[in-house]
Amino acid sequence: MSILVVGSVAIDSVETPLGRADNVVGGAATYFALAASYFAPVRLVAAVGDDFPSDVLDTLRSRGVDLGGLEHRQGTTLRWRGRYHEDMNVRDTLHLDLGVFADFQPRIPSAYRDSQHVFLANIDPRLQSAVLDQLSAPGLIGCDTMNHWILESRPALETLLTRVGILVINDEEARLLSGERNVVRAARRILQMGPKTLLVKRGEYGVIQFSAQSIFAVPAFPLEEVFDPTGAGDTFAGGFMGELARSGDHSEGGLRRAIVCGSVMASFVVEDFSYRRLLTLSSETIERRYRQFVSLTDISGV
Amino acid sequence: MSILVVGSVAIDSVETPLGRADNVVGGAATYFALAASYFAPVRLVAAVGDDFPSDVLDTLRSRGVDLGGLEHRQGTTLRWRGRYHEDMNVRDTLHLDLGVFADFQPRIPSAYRDSQHVFLANIDPRLQSAVLDQLSAPGLIGCDTMNHWILESRPALETLLTRVGILVINDEEARLLSGERNVVRAARRILQMGPKTLLVKRGEYGVIQFSAQSIFAVPAFPLEEVFDPTGAGDTFAGGFMGELARSGDHSEGGLRRAIVCGSVMASFVVEDFSYRRLLTLSSETIERRYRQFVSLTDISGV
Repeated sequence: MSILVVGSVAIDSVETPLGRADNVVGGAATYFALAASYFAPVRLVAAVGDDFPSDVLDTLRSRGVDLGGLEHRQGTTLRWRGRYHEDMNVRDTLHLDLGVFADFQPRIPSAYRDSQHVFLANIDPRLQSAVLDQLSAPGLIGCDTMNHWILESRPALETLLTRVGILVINDEEARLLSGERNVVRAARRILQMGPKTLLVKRGEYGVIQFSAQSIFAVPAFPLEEVFDPTGAGDTFAGGFMGELARSGDHSEGGLRRAIVCGSVMASFVVEDFSYRRLLTLSSETIERRYRQFVSLTDISGV
Repeated sequence: MSILVVGSVAIDSVETPLGRADNVVGGAATYFALAASYFAPVRLVAAVGDDFPSDVLDTLRSRGVDLGGLEHRQGTTLRWRGRYHEDMNVRDTLHLDLGVFADFQPRIPSAYRDSQHVFLANIDPRLQSAVLDQLSAPGLIGCDTMNHWILESRPALETLLTRVGILVINDEEARLLSGERNVVRAARRILQMGPKTLLVKRGEYGVIQFSAQSIFAVPAFPLEEVFDPTGAGDTFAGGFMGELARSGDHSEGGLRRAIVCGSVMASFVVEDFSYRRLLTLSSETIERRYRQFVSLTDISGV
């Protein structure tokens, strides 16, 4: 079953303690789409400028990403330049130029309106709601947000959250949204705002999932070398939602397996700059790391 | 099978964001002994001053802790006063008075010399080695240390590490000891120093175990309220080593189950000040939380 993602496609320049990459393709929707493409066909809604490299579009198409919802506009693509600290959980934005993304108004092609699985990557919550207004009857809606919207567009975000099934944010965002430092109390408050399921991304410490019935925690895959953490959270969301679209299993077990799929994809993407690593995977490579995850966390030690 | 612990017994005064407790009993060996006592008989070697409350000794004895190795000396017991930040991973030491602990020279009673399971809590690595010199043929040696010894007594610490099977330290200590920021690289270096197994404690993010053959990661139990993190690491070590002494199973599976036992005990101790919560447990309470841990981490979602 297809999955629809709406969000940013960008051109990034990134410095990490291990190197740098200039003018490489980034953006939440890009990472999401490539990760999800290993599990299900992807429909992408975003906007790029006339500076966007056309070979990247071919790459996305070759991975089964439908670009019928990608707007090509006059002007420049969203550009971000950032630098990661020695502690790669911390980064500085050195430069941000929204370009054609500044007045992006997502329009859902009629062929996408029946999408059952939808992911609203981090954009203005009013636009995220406008996406939902254009869909006929989405079955599972996942969504991300960021500190900026929590602080500046809280009413719109709260309205959106009443319509969302799964919220995928990081620990800092969970604290800010809930006003609670403790993650369990933060989760309890956020679940009262609407989502049935909350996923809190904790960087190198993995992900913790909360629902009314249960808590599930999975560590990040321990890697010797993290080249570039950019897009890890969006890649996680892509693997997670992609697997849910593939299996159609939204039970607790289905969610847990999907979280491991997301963690697997995130563990790959940080091994190289930009989305490069997401182009070289096979289902065997993904399955092997999935089994490594099981062994990493299996208490019986088999 | 008995387990021997050598380390500090102290009188603490603690402030956390949720309250304060003055002149309560602390010390690594105390926490370790009480946690381990739920799994195996404990032999304790430490020193206290003449200000130490005798009812605490009765409490320890009632939990099956053999105090034949506890020296009573003229002077004051080690006293520590600390304050935790809003982020309870961070604490300031406001006052430290070593008292009779300043020239503590652990003497192992002859009845303890056959101890098979030994834990060297955080003291001067020369003293930790001197403990090992007094034992006939210990089967499993666990050990803790801290930044002070890594910086000031590195040669003695490195000698000790060649004699130790399991090193239990926190992430900051692992980075300092190895000179590596990445935990996987840090672990690889530390395993080259001697220990067959390294356990890295990551506070609210749990524990990660490294050996030549495998990696195992377990999250901390998600708690709504952490009253006092003091002693959580020592309590973890007590549950971990206690379970290994109980089962005698040092296989990968045995180690993993012991890590969960340690995590279970640590999740209890932070629910109240000092060691109070460690006095009110039953094997049923412990088993229930063990099962909650399994469900927290089980990918199949049963």
